[in-house]
Amino acid sequence: MGILRIEGAETITVADGCQVHSGWTFEAVDGEITYVGPAEEFQPSDKPDDLIDGANSLLLPGFVNAHTHAAMTLFRGSADDMQLQPWLEEKIWPVERKLKPEDVYWGTMLAAAEMLRAGVTCYNDMYHLPEQGTRAAIEAGIRMCPSGVLLGFLSNAEDLLREAVEFCQDYDEAGDGRIKPMLAPHAPYTCPRPMLEKVIAAAADIGVPIHIHLAETEENVQSALDNYGMRTIQAMKEIGLFSVPVAAAHCVHLDETEIEILAESQVGVVHCPGSNMKLSSGIAPVPELLAAGATVGLGTDGCASNNNLDLLQEAQLAALLAKVHTGDPTALPAEVALTLATRGGAEALNLADRIGTLEVGKRADAILVDIDRPHFYPRHNLVSHLIYAARASDVRTTIVDGKVLLRDGQFTELDEQEIIAHACESADRLF
Amino acid sequence: MGILRIEGAETITVADGCQVHSGWTFEAVDGEITYVGPAEEFQPSDKPDDLIDGANSLLLPGFVNAHTHAAMTLFRGSADDMQLQPWLEEKIWPVERKLKPEDVYWGTMLAAAEMLRAGVTCYNDMYHLPEQGTRAAIEAGIRMCPSGVLLGFLSNAEDLLREAVEFCQDYDEAGDGRIKPMLAPHAPYTCPRPMLEKVIAAAADIGVPIHIHLAETEENVQSALDNYGMRTIQAMKEIGLFSVPVAAAHCVHLDETEIEILAESQVGVVHCPGSNMKLSSGIAPVPELLAAGATVGLGTDGCASNNNLDLLQEAQLAALLAKVHTGDPTALPAEVALTLATRGGAEALNLADRIGTLEVGKRADAILVDIDRPHFYPRHNLVSHLIYAARASDVRTTIVDGKVLLRDGQFTELDEQEIIAHACESADRLF
Repeated sequence: MGILRIEGAETITVADGCQVHSGWTFEAVDGEITYVGPAEEFQPSDKPDDLIDGANSLLLPGFVNAHTHAAMTLFRGSADDMQLQPWLEEKIWPVERKLKPEDVYWGTMLAAAEMLRAGVTCYNDMYHLPEQGTRAAIEAGIRMCPSGVLLGFLSNAEDLLREAVEFCQDYDEAGDGRIKPMLAPHAPYTCPRPMLEKVIAAAADIGVPIHIHLAETEENVQSALDNYGMRTIQAMKEIGLFSVPVAAAHCVHLDETEIEILAESQVGVVHCPGSNMKLSSGIAPVPELLAAGATVGLGTDGCASNNNLDLLQEAQLAALLAKVHTGDPTALPAEVALTLATRGGAEALNLADRIGTLEVGKRADAILVDIDRPHFYPRHNLVSHLIYAARASDVRTTIVDGKVLLRDGQFTELDEQEIIAHACESADRLF
Repeated sequence: MGILRIEGAETITVADGCQVHSGWTFEAVDGEITYVGPAEEFQPSDKPDDLIDGANSLLLPGFVNAHTHAAMTLFRGSADDMQLQPWLEEKIWPVERKLKPEDVYWGTMLAAAEMLRAGVTCYNDMYHLPEQGTRAAIEAGIRMCPSGVLLGFLSNAEDLLREAVEFCQDYDEAGDGRIKPMLAPHAPYTCPRPMLEKVIAAAADIGVPIHIHLAETEENVQSALDNYGMRTIQAMKEIGLFSVPVAAAHCVHLDETEIEILAESQVGVVHCPGSNMKLSSGIAPVPELLAAGATVGLGTDGCASNNNLDLLQEAQLAALLAKVHTGDPTALPAEVALTLATRGGAEALNLADRIGTLEVGKRADAILVDIDRPHFYPRHNLVSHLIYAARASDVRTTIVDGKVLLRDGQFTELDEQEIIAHACESADRLF
């Protein structure tokens, strides 16, 4: 990889709030950030192997998609505008039972292509046959937290947990350190208490975080009340879930006590506004969570319920939804939305020591946004433009771990047409 | 202009619902659609002057932005995340008082460039110095319904109305028929009843529609209750507003009776979900309006409250917001969202006889969307993909009145860099 240098970009590090610094220089050596600051203070060590002109570009940390089911790209548009139960029972599950390893591989490759084009440099995946999705992510060069789906009600659930633990051990730091597995009990309503307790013990034992769906719907909360005699988050505290790092997707239906618990326990709450809106799940109390000091990231959820992997759109939705829901136009301002999409996601995935901001010593996951487009003018406020006016296609260059994967809208290594052809073959067979 | 022919596109006419027809042929002669149907039934009259290969593209009617303040592009990002009154009084109005003709011209040119890039072929504008905005629209080649802003509380309101009537007469069918002016009393809370009645009489007299803001906020409704002793829509019915064609922006705060009135009176309701969310105005009851048989289009509102002119994003927001607000994931499905963005907007602007669908005899306002992108695969459902996965930048070719204004992402005549430079000069002087 060697030395990557970017000169002259408008730079947002997200380390000092969302200040925009004009004409800074950025350098990474072998994937680690070695300089980000004023051009005039930069002391070059050596000639760069790759020098990028950042003029008319905005440089910022890559977006973190903190909750998705990547291979579900294969389901995109196959079942919309439906009630949840028929959607799952008639559309999703019957097809998932037919999934072969190559389907998950190519579905994930399609997801990786889409995410890299949209400036997503890291994602948190929960899906079947995780070896396949992980292989795709490693080959695509993207950063990823993989996990299988542990359904605690299955008769072979303990075997699946054992396999999942082995998977975590086998793949930890794979892909030159880009892969950080998690254990993923699907949700409290699909994982009975004894199984959940075993997963928590295993996560503590091998030192990996847990990825789980919590309090997505009213029905989920009712299920916790039925099974534990308390609401979801209280129940999860009770059984010790929050004794390990947790990335908790959705967290829509919370009372005040639960908001406090999530904040105190430093749970990584993953807000998925697009999915929550499309499936009518409800509106997560994000301003209240932030006021309580909770860690919040953003996720797209899978393409069967969104239907894209566009994290910038989630940041926009997060801001707009918070305003209309609270009746307060100052709720969740642009700077906060951008922070959630980058640093917040990294924190939610327990990766804040390596990604989420552009700081010396962190890994070089960064994007360049083309700001020479009509909707970026006049340039009163670039953070506002990014959140309230931009679109994912404005991302032109995507860098993961110091490697340029997308350069000015073109993939440097991925063969997008081959990926599309294979993903469509899979979809043709499945549907 | 001559003969424009498009071959082999996936085609949605929006005349037969939102069916997708594979490999149809489309032809327009001198701006009028002469054929849209199966390739094998097409009988070419003559050699086309312009032949476009529609492979891997989706052909559909151009989007109609049924409510905006185009020149407010100059304000983009200058004042976000604020309460409404300080936003207006401290940020917007002081700058508007400094506006010169060239500011409105270049701000509108920037808006036209942005809209044409986003597939908007027609827009409904309400802004100061309307001759300037109209001149820009004529030069840019876009279709437009211009109107000044009539503030009834001004001491010279009657002079302004007289000028507005002259403007309507002078500009009717200007720009080769692309310009259809309206009269625009700003809103009931800024136009006292005597003035509103004069505007209604003038509109009836010269045969133009009225463009107005109605029931955007709770305060607006309270103002109607204070001044008329009834809610906004009832008050407007009482004074005869709906005896002329009306494009009514927002219509957020409505009771059941008012929904019935809007439907019965065939008022063109213009839903602006992005603006309503960002300013915390509330959530318009769109599914209820549609169930009552109302005419509904979509608008972006101005760039000071959105902050872009991306009508596809409004269609997406309309669908998502309706679902989360009603708690019903089947509310406002993709086909309806696409219909609102095209045909619904044309109907709301009283232009359904000439635009809004791709049908023989209508004007050729059409767009080509590039569907050879990761987020358009697999192709289970192209309407779903357009509403739930696409972004405005997927629009690659924009045609207004049979003329190709944007071809494969490049403007055929507009000088985008010149427009940006002038718009920024204006912004620099104003702010």
